[in-house]
Amino acid sequence: MREETSFGPFDCVSPLDFRYYGTSRTLFKKLAPFVSERARVAYELKVEVALVEVLANRGLCTREVAEEVKRGAEKVTAEEVAAEEERIQHNTRALVNSLRAKVPEAARRFIHFGLTSFDVVDTATALRFKELTEKVLLPDLIRLEANLIRLARREKETIQIGRTHGQHAVPITFGFAMAEYVSRLGNRIEAVKAAAENLRGKISGAVGAYNAMSLLVPDPEEVERELLARLGLKPSTHSTQIVEPEYLVDYVHSLISTFGVLANLADDLRHLQRTEIAEVGEVFEAAQVGSSTMPQKRNPLNFENVKSMWKAFFPRMLTCYADQISEHQRDLTNSASQRFIPEIAVGLESCVERLNRVIPKLVVDRDNMEKNLELTGDSVVAEALYILLASQGHPDAHEEVRRLTLLAEKTGENLYSIALADKGVEPHLARLSPEQVRVLKSPENYSGMAAIKAREVCDEWSARLGIKESEEK
Amino acid sequence: MREETSFGPFDCVSPLDFRYYGTSRTLFKKLAPFVSERARVAYELKVEVALVEVLANRGLCTREVAEEVKRGAEKVTAEEVAAEEERIQHNTRALVNSLRAKVPEAARRFIHFGLTSFDVVDTATALRFKELTEKVLLPDLIRLEANLIRLARREKETIQIGRTHGQHAVPITFGFAMAEYVSRLGNRIEAVKAAAENLRGKISGAVGAYNAMSLLVPDPEEVERELLARLGLKPSTHSTQIVEPEYLVDYVHSLISTFGVLANLADDLRHLQRTEIAEVGEVFEAAQVGSSTMPQKRNPLNFENVKSMWKAFFPRMLTCYADQISEHQRDLTNSASQRFIPEIAVGLESCVERLNRVIPKLVVDRDNMEKNLELTGDSVVAEALYILLASQGHPDAHEEVRRLTLLAEKTGENLYSIALADKGVEPHLARLSPEQVRVLKSPENYSGMAAIKAREVCDEWSARLGIKESEEK
Amino acid sequence: MREETSFGPFDCVSPLDFRYYGTSRTLFKKLAPFVSERARVAYELKVEVALVEVLANRGLCTREVAEEVKRGAEKVTAEEVAAEEERIQHNTRALVNSLRAKVPEAARRFIHFGLTSFDVVDTATALRFKELTEKVLLPDLIRLEANLIRLARREKETIQIGRTHGQHAVPITFGFAMAEYVSRLGNRIEAVKAAAENLRGKISGAVGAYNAMSLLVPDPEEVERELLARLGLKPSTHSTQIVEPEYLVDYVHSLISTFGVLANLADDLRHLQRTEIAEVGEVFEAAQVGSSTMPQKRNPLNFENVKSMWKAFFPRMLTCYADQISEHQRDLTNSASQRFIPEIAVGLESCVERLNRVIPKLVVDRDNMEKNLELTGDSVVAEALYILLASQGHPDAHEEVRRLTLLAEKTGENLYSIALADKGVEPHLARLSPEQVRVLKSPENYSGMAAIKAREVCDEWSARLGIKESEEK
Amino acid sequence: MREETSFGPFDCVSPLDFRYYGTSRTLFKKLAPFVSERARVAYELKVEVALVEVLANRGLCTREVAEEVKRGAEKVTAEEVAAEEERIQHNTRALVNSLRAKVPEAARRFIHFGLTSFDVVDTATALRFKELTEKVLLPDLIRLEANLIRLARREKETIQIGRTHGQHAVPITFGFAMAEYVSRLGNRIEAVKAAAENLRGKISGAVGAYNAMSLLVPDPEEVERELLARLGLKPSTHSTQIVEPEYLVDYVHSLISTFGVLANLADDLRHLQRTEIAEVGEVFEAAQVGSSTMPQKRNPLNFENVKSMWKAFFPRMLTCYADQISEHQRDLTNSASQRFIPEIAVGLESCVERLNRVIPKLVVDRDNMEKNLELTGDSVVAEALYILLASQGHPDAHEEVRRLTLLAEKTGENLYSIALADKGVEPHLARLSPEQVRVLKSPENYSGMAAIKAREVCDEWSARLGIKESEEK
Repeated sequence: MREETSFGPFDCVSPLDFRYYGTSRTLFKKLAPFVSERARVAYELKVEVALVEVLANRGLCTREVAEEVKRGAEKVTAEEVAAEEERIQHNTRALVNSLRAKVPEAARRFIHFGLTSFDVVDTATALRFKELTEKVLLPDLIRLEANLIRLARREKETIQIGRTHGQHAVPITFGFAMAEYVSRLGNRIEAVKAAAENLRGKISGAVGAYNAMSLLVPDPEEVERELLARLGLKPSTHSTQIVEPEYLVDYVHSLISTFGVLANLADDLRHLQRTEIAEVGEVFEAAQVGSSTMPQKRNPLNFENVKSMWKAFFPRMLTCYADQISEHQRDLTNSASQRFIPEIAVGLESCVERLNRVIPKLVVDRDNMEKNLELTGDSVVAEALYILLASQGHPDAHEEVRRLTLLAEKTGENLYSIALADKGVEPHLARLSPEQVRVLKSPENYSGMAAIKAREVCDEWSARLGIKESEEK
Repeated sequence: MREETSFGPFDCVSPLDFRYYGTSRTLFKKLAPFVSERARVAYELKVEVALVEVLANRGLCTREVAEEVKRGAEKVTAEEVAAEEERIQHNTRALVNSLRAKVPEAARRFIHFGLTSFDVVDTATALRFKELTEKVLLPDLIRLEANLIRLARREKETIQIGRTHGQHAVPITFGFAMAEYVSRLGNRIEAVKAAAENLRGKISGAVGAYNAMSLLVPDPEEVERELLARLGLKPSTHSTQIVEPEYLVDYVHSLISTFGVLANLADDLRHLQRTEIAEVGEVFEAAQVGSSTMPQKRNPLNFENVKSMWKAFFPRMLTCYADQISEHQRDLTNSASQRFIPEIAVGLESCVERLNRVIPKLVVDRDNMEKNLELTGDSVVAEALYILLASQGHPDAHEEVRRLTLLAEKTGENLYSIALADKGVEPHLARLSPEQVRVLKSPENYSGMAAIKAREVCDEWSARLGIKESEEK
Repeated sequence: MREETSFGPFDCVSPLDFRYYGTSRTLFKKLAPFVSERARVAYELKVEVALVEVLANRGLCTREVAEEVKRGAEKVTAEEVAAEEERIQHNTRALVNSLRAKVPEAARRFIHFGLTSFDVVDTATALRFKELTEKVLLPDLIRLEANLIRLARREKETIQIGRTHGQHAVPITFGFAMAEYVSRLGNRIEAVKAAAENLRGKISGAVGAYNAMSLLVPDPEEVERELLARLGLKPSTHSTQIVEPEYLVDYVHSLISTFGVLANLADDLRHLQRTEIAEVGEVFEAAQVGSSTMPQKRNPLNFENVKSMWKAFFPRMLTCYADQISEHQRDLTNSASQRFIPEIAVGLESCVERLNRVIPKLVVDRDNMEKNLELTGDSVVAEALYILLASQGHPDAHEEVRRLTLLAEKTGENLYSIALADKGVEPHLARLSPEQVRVLKSPENYSGMAAIKAREVCDEWSARLGIKESEEK
Repeated sequence: MREETSFGPFDCVSPLDFRYYGTSRTLFKKLAPFVSERARVAYELKVEVALVEVLANRGLCTREVAEEVKRGAEKVTAEEVAAEEERIQHNTRALVNSLRAKVPEAARRFIHFGLTSFDVVDTATALRFKELTEKVLLPDLIRLEANLIRLARREKETIQIGRTHGQHAVPITFGFAMAEYVSRLGNRIEAVKAAAENLRGKISGAVGAYNAMSLLVPDPEEVERELLARLGLKPSTHSTQIVEPEYLVDYVHSLISTFGVLANLADDLRHLQRTEIAEVGEVFEAAQVGSSTMPQKRNPLNFENVKSMWKAFFPRMLTCYADQISEHQRDLTNSASQRFIPEIAVGLESCVERLNRVIPKLVVDRDNMEKNLELTGDSVVAEALYILLASQGHPDAHEEVRRLTLLAEKTGENLYSIALADKGVEPHLARLSPEQVRVLKSPENYSGMAAIKAREVCDEWSARLGIKESEEK
């Protein structure tokens, strides 16, 4: 093994380690207890400890042995496990040997008693991801949800032009636009939660048939249930040397699909920051440099980062799908590849934290929103006109309005006036209510249910996720 | 548009169309009502019909109009919609125009009234996948599950060597090996079912804010609920021009992860067919040719096909993830790409049907299973020996057994005899129960809970999926 | 097999078959000879014919036999091969039997003589892709390149603001922006050409060791070379039952990476069509409908389609990578998956043709380009100011300009005036040449080498690809 | 930034950092100079130094300034760049500021003079990958090629049954089987070399139009060429803020497709290690533990690792494809994602090094190869029989042999005897040469050109890659 004395984050090849996580005060503190190699060792030791506790419960070893193993486990370091592994070339055996070395001889034989390596590895993995999710990911995702709810509520009446195909369509409110992400993120939070809670462990031995354990106890499935219950886990219906892969595959899917929602949010805000649109902006710190040569630039760095991280991580889902395939009672071709899965959680959390820094400080430029809406003049009224003509019985309203719009474009006149001046159309307009005419006269009145819907969506997700008003900041 | 007169399946570029679906009597009949372009047109017409029915319910148009539109919809053909689209370059408008042409003039204006294209497209898509799943995919998946359960039950006591890393490990039963797939497939069936039932529609207009509809009715959200309820769907909490993408993403994930389970099953059976292993075989039809030059070959063609189809389809998940991103109230860069999603269902169903043909005829060669178990001699007993020594208080059983195994290999003697002859080990052996000695004497007795577990797993999934004994064939 | 009588494109599940290729007059005509199932049969027959010609050359059969086989091959239909395959469940044997049925008995035994199925399949595949590339893809890609060159030349002096991060940076010309794609597409055309020319065949038998052929001739490698040379192909250095996969993998990479260039071009033009930017536009046909409810919309449908098709196809590269792995002398898990590769070429060609329709009619709005440039006022001069100050010896020009820019923003005054008024900065400005001052006074003068570079790039790629001025339209 | 004092490899989340690279004595030493964050800083400084050297050459600054900057660059640490970046939130500016702080005031203004960040970043990236490839990857790949050549030559006459579909086909030699990888790896080595040599830099400013540089010198393209030439690089024909992405995409493709060849090799050897096949084996170290509970296990850990690493890395190609798309003169959504590319090289090199450790010690069990060949009895002769019958004019040899094979299976008699006893077949057999009869009598004689081809392939690739006999170990 390499001498470690001089190893620091900048010796790493992973940008997570040297940039996004390893050198971040906050992320490192939050995540290291779950995602570092040190954490892997610690979690695997938890499984070994749980075993002797179950053995003690059943009188197969003494309480004292269980206590000694528990105390021993606290002393095992990742460094010594790695050193032992280098000697014997076996991961879990190295862990077991390191733990054995910390306990009195009489206790040694109860360590790893009846287990296979992947009883420990897979159970620890499930537990790591479950706790990482409960203690870090979900709270931070809910914090982001609360930030989005606050933004959506605040801007629920702020009129903005709706855009489809990058083209002005009909008006919405900016709060309604943000409510999209409240809803989609809320939906994903529930998905992540469900998938994490459904992660499973196993204590079923080398090929899943409890061969070893059935030599020792009459009820090995019960031992499995007890041991896993101590850790807050359940066993899967069936296992081989490994847990059925679909529980983890579902979990990673929940992370990757959450990442996609963040990427879309980031992309939207990034485009709304375009010089010509300029409806939102990231706050810029005093000392911050926008460009190494163009001092005037205000780049949407944070939103670009989220999109970019998403591009780095979403293809990794395919590794998980490929790892669904393991020959017979398992081959080890999923071993190295699965070691990379914690990176996905780190990549996602890094983006969640980033958005939690940026979203509360998002600058909304209502003047520009208004100015942009005016750009398209009243031609956004075209849809309303088409609908109202049709509702008044005009037999071919869509074609009619298309014609009038081209005319409006050519003459530069406003569409409503052109419509009023058209003999075929005017009679239908005469029958409209004042309310309906109000919409035709002024596009900002044509925002439908946007404001109401924004509120409803925020209310629904606040309730479903138990977000209190006070947390929404 | 190309002249269609001479177009047949062999003019197609898609292997689905010219080989796996389009030219298959059974698959085509089952799937075409959901996945063909003709089906898309039919489903979109269902949405248009549902709209006028809702309008009629509310007195916005007459019952007669609703009836006329319903009758008109039955007459619209995919061909004429395509012809109209070629003229006007707009998909949904072409559908609308084609439908309008089938109804009396007075009814025309109620068609598509207040809708945007993607109210129709997304709602029809959700409905197509939901019904395809309920009517074809799930029944066939459950049939496969039943076939696997029958196989697992039948072979639950058939001793087979368990294999990890392609190496002999300790014994299981073949029924236990198959129970893995009973469990994993059962789990996926529940996932597919849940995801399909959760697909959503939308009737919220061009940007999701019900702009048009709110000109026509006081309660557009209620209209949306009513219309979708007629089709058996629910709206998503929020929509833009399109339904939130995550519902469909979850659904495709359920399909792809199901595909992975089939691929693993196929891979296992494929390897068990290797000449040197030969524990299972596909039945070979009388006229079937194994190889164009090697007449003796019996290739695992069906299992190879399943693995290969999986390789063709699992990367497509990334298209769905990429389609989570749509700018603002939507861009159309998910339009062409989503047209390919039905192919995934066809690819999967083609493999499900294939396995339903092959699995019931799977030949299990119990003699070879026995012969292979003997190959490793009693060295599979090594694990049992290690466990029993440790349980008898041997302080370093794992290392001890490793030493004895090397000795057994060198001398060619059997491991139990060598252990009995070892002065350090023998006293521990003397304390074993007859039952335990029985395991050491004969490896086939060391299959743990394999047979019991196989039965339990079959019982559990039969119950959860409501599979009756009679269906298991 | 399904009754074919009623099968038309709209019965297909593949959007290629029912929409992008199968129902397109032009694409179908161009591509069907290479990518349809019919084409596969035809190309495989070419290999069988080439074999008997080689046999005849060597006197192993008569010229007459070779002629008879050639004539027979012309009569074999895809339909009868499929029917025979249904009977015997073997693809290539079905082809062979169908061909045998078309020749006199004496000639039959020379058909497929000494070959294995994949001698025929892999060689035909290489040939199909090679000829498809030479006859369709490359000419159309070069046509697109010529269209881009014409656009870039025409607009080489059209000043446009350069954009990085969606923010205004410093000026370029629109021709320079298009020259990016001239260069990147040119580069990819060379890559596609090289990869297609490097596709290989094989005539080396069931496991690649020429086992059968070496019973028949003393120089089987020479037979392989002769046969392949007749088809314009070379053998790979080594083969098993199949050609080394990397030749095809490189070819597909060349297609997918070309697709990425088109997607970026489409994305750029799509964003330049945003309502607020409006620097370019797709021409809109008279009868075309922009939106089913918003008659005024002009959506960038074609560019959205290209981006969307790219999303549908780029993940498929992973199927090719996965297919690099074939066990021992091959397993068949790459068989079904490789049948889908022609779809990638069709998807790409469909986008190339689309762009060849749209690019020549691209509307460039120079007024809006000018207006947008003015938007940022003279603050784009900031970079020039920083450079010139530094060149005049200002010790901290970047920081200085950042400060001045903030001041300009705050006061609303123009940056050059503010700089002139600054005591620390003014002396440096006094030393500038009139040319340099001209740039500071007016941002449109600060476009560097854009126009020159645009011309150079067009010249280089015209020369490298042999594009004549006349073709550039 | 996190306090670094206690940071070691086991605090990392990346398995590369804590396991495969960061804690490996050899890999870390080889790779850190190219792939660590420290290396990035060092390479970017090389670009800054090259700039002032070019400026000095042209008399724009003094030689002394160039020397001072060069000396200053040697003193800049990754730590101080990171600290400065944390302050100002700009990567390259932080590098520039750190370098400026190391030189006398008069030299400062020449640093980064006329450059944009990505002139430095992209040029340094190209250089890093080019040198990493030349100095580490290629030498180690060629070492692996030499190891494979040595193995293939040594085993070129070792008869092994060829396998297709996991079924016995016809004989080859093990050297021939290994020659497949000699050829495919050789081909990839040439691809990697070509792609690395074709990586490009750029010195064309913020939007690629040399805006800034054209204020300073009359020939900015010449400055770009000179600067890049100092580093051994060429510019691309066109650039925006960034180098055209396809050069890097091609490079990563060359790495990923090389990885696929290694994965296939590993998979083949892994399967040949199956207990029932046992034709090859990894040497097992004395202290090595095979399984934590099954002491007798000899798992193909190294080959499983290679396959697993491939699964972790091959999907990342899609990130590169997605990064081909950058809006206008670039957005930054490729910034974070590209930071992960060096990981791909590390993953690949880790597997190359692993195979270089394992392949030379590969144990080939010729007895088992012989035993396995006998398994299929003379039925492998079936192909030869079919060929020879056909060559003797039998009109339907394939069908005839299929019939005889079924008969041989039923009766248990050997195929040649059965054929001799068949009245229709015997007359054809009577005309065979003694040589041909020899093949029918004994399957091991039916290995075609396997041995010759193995030698030819080794000769060809030794010559093409300049591998000398002595290196082949």
